[in-house]
Amino acid sequence: MSGFTCPLPLRDYPHVVMGHGGGGSLSRDLIDHVFLPAFSNPLLDRLGDSTVVDIAADLAEGGRLALSTDSYVVRPLFFPGGSIGDLAVNGTVNDLAMSGARPLYLTAGFVIEEGLAIGDLAEVARRMGAAASRAGVRIVTGDTKVVERGHGDGVYINTAGVGAVPAGIGVNAVPIQPGDIVLASGTLGDHGMAIMSVREGLEFEAEIESDTAPLHGIVAAMLAACPEIRVLRDPTRGGVATSLNEIASAASLGIEIDERAIPVQPVVAAACEILGLDPLQVANEGKLLAIVPADAADRVLAAMRAHEHGRDAVAIGRVVDGHPRMVVMRTAIGGNRVIPMPLGEQLPRIC
Amino acid sequence: MSGFTCPLPLRDYPHVVMGHGGGGSLSRDLIDHVFLPAFSNPLLDRLGDSTVVDIAADLAEGGRLALSTDSYVVRPLFFPGGSIGDLAVNGTVNDLAMSGARPLYLTAGFVIEEGLAIGDLAEVARRMGAAASRAGVRIVTGDTKVVERGHGDGVYINTAGVGAVPAGIGVNAVPIQPGDIVLASGTLGDHGMAIMSVREGLEFEAEIESDTAPLHGIVAAMLAACPEIRVLRDPTRGGVATSLNEIASAASLGIEIDERAIPVQPVVAAACEILGLDPLQVANEGKLLAIVPADAADRVLAAMRAHEHGRDAVAIGRVVDGHPRMVVMRTAIGGNRVIPMPLGEQLPRIC
Repeated sequence: MSGFTCPLPLRDYPHVVMGHGGGGSLSRDLIDHVFLPAFSNPLLDRLGDSTVVDIAADLAEGGRLALSTDSYVVRPLFFPGGSIGDLAVNGTVNDLAMSGARPLYLTAGFVIEEGLAIGDLAEVARRMGAAASRAGVRIVTGDTKVVERGHGDGVYINTAGVGAVPAGIGVNAVPIQPGDIVLASGTLGDHGMAIMSVREGLEFEAEIESDTAPLHGIVAAMLAACPEIRVLRDPTRGGVATSLNEIASAASLGIEIDERAIPVQPVVAAACEILGLDPLQVANEGKLLAIVPADAADRVLAAMRAHEHGRDAVAIGRVVDGHPRMVVMRTAIGGNRVIPMPLGEQLPRIC
Repeated sequence: MSGFTCPLPLRDYPHVVMGHGGGGSLSRDLIDHVFLPAFSNPLLDRLGDSTVVDIAADLAEGGRLALSTDSYVVRPLFFPGGSIGDLAVNGTVNDLAMSGARPLYLTAGFVIEEGLAIGDLAEVARRMGAAASRAGVRIVTGDTKVVERGHGDGVYINTAGVGAVPAGIGVNAVPIQPGDIVLASGTLGDHGMAIMSVREGLEFEAEIESDTAPLHGIVAAMLAACPEIRVLRDPTRGGVATSLNEIASAASLGIEIDERAIPVQPVVAAACEILGLDPLQVANEGKLLAIVPADAADRVLAAMRAHEHGRDAVAIGRVVDGHPRMVVMRTAIGGNRVIPMPLGEQLPRIC
């Protein structure tokens, strides 16, 4: 079965072919020319089926291991403010950060559709590598599969993340209590509306950019200001509405938010209005919600505002005894509106 | 945006719809009714975006962390001897095992095509859970995305694995040397030909079954017999031909294998003949190759044969000084044939 010869010098394939997923020399070519230059680090360069790391120092004195995973299927692959590569790094870093972990290592799995331009794949990889570098994490092992045209959509990326939770950090350890304050780290709905504006061809005076960013830095600053932060959440798919409903439901308490306090960029509000979307249900990729004891709110807010990813941080609401398991918004005109758990897909393929 | 009402009681969706990937209550329904019953364990049940585990005891006395990832795109989803769910667990467990690690935790990411029968997804999940249970690993965190019909193929699964490599275990630490023996743990080509036979509608007297199995148990037995095992590899995509070429190439040494020693089931050999495939290039999912010092070969073989996944273990070749970076097979009729690195895809979507 060795009679198969390569129709082109390997480096000259302009598009991904099925053979790039076959585990042979074409696969190796993709790794050598696309992934290694983008991700290169001594651990990945060993190219084993698994990577062995010494994590003892990171877990010293009672530290625990945090694990997370997310698959990214966003369409289009590139959008204002980011790309699927940025999301694949920052999204998983943020899942780790929400447990108070310091992100350390990522794994990366690619499911590539036959026909994807190698140049596009290389650009996705380059941006992943740059995002990993910015976030201070290393992509240490990976896998590439190729599926036939019409069984994928460019590229789907899975990343799994490993982080270290320092001893003494117990985000989610103490239940939320009535009187606790709900903080948001900045404007809401930017990522989802950046994607939707591209897809719908909406044009505004100011372009809407995704907020994709790694949040472990701001989390560390917040935990330094208040180790007793009760809950951290990054409101991605399903937006703030989903995150707050999940929190209220889990605690059997109510959450009250104030419409006037909710930070939404005017251009995002305008785009939501045109498309009939609620910014509270729109995905964010570089924002977090925190629930903190009332007496710590000011110092956590100050820590957030001092960080580049929290300059517009505000208190948006509080935990209440009334209406357990429900999120209620006091509207700008003084009424009350229930913010339900979204049922399903407002914006498909947003992340 | 709360006017969207559910057209059916959630449990009555017969197929996956886009909303199941939206992060809202439909997503939650899928988790509650499909994934949790299949995977349930106290860590997963917390359902955070990440999971925090205390791994100190597993890494005691100098243990290191092993990380691996693989995406599974096999078609069909169910086949004789296994399913994509079995592969998704055993494949990643085996990647960890090849570094000498004891597998501990898996993450699971699902990219589901709209329209997949919920019953099929539940069966995949059930088999993943059963495989995890058999392998002694826990699926501790996961993610679900849904893509539109025609942008996937049923379900693609990524798993990432975390394991602990005991102190003193250094698979791949000492380079292979001329005279080292190449061992195979059993018959070759079973998985790939099980898939191909289903796809091509081939019928034989005996059905070809995938060999999918977790290999960390046999690896532990082998390391107990000989801690100085030089290399372990599970020859999946690209088969034995790819694994041995990679090993020879990395070491700048030659590998010589003996055609008469290579164990291939008669029915697999027949299927390969019909389809014009080389069993050395066909994927295995429950077999390993080991390279061991010559003086340890017998005792490693004995340890393999005493294990349920190594009953047919044999020596198939040796490392040689001649023909560096090449794998050469002594054929049954006494000739020599170069076994090249496969270029690409002999069997697409095999795992």
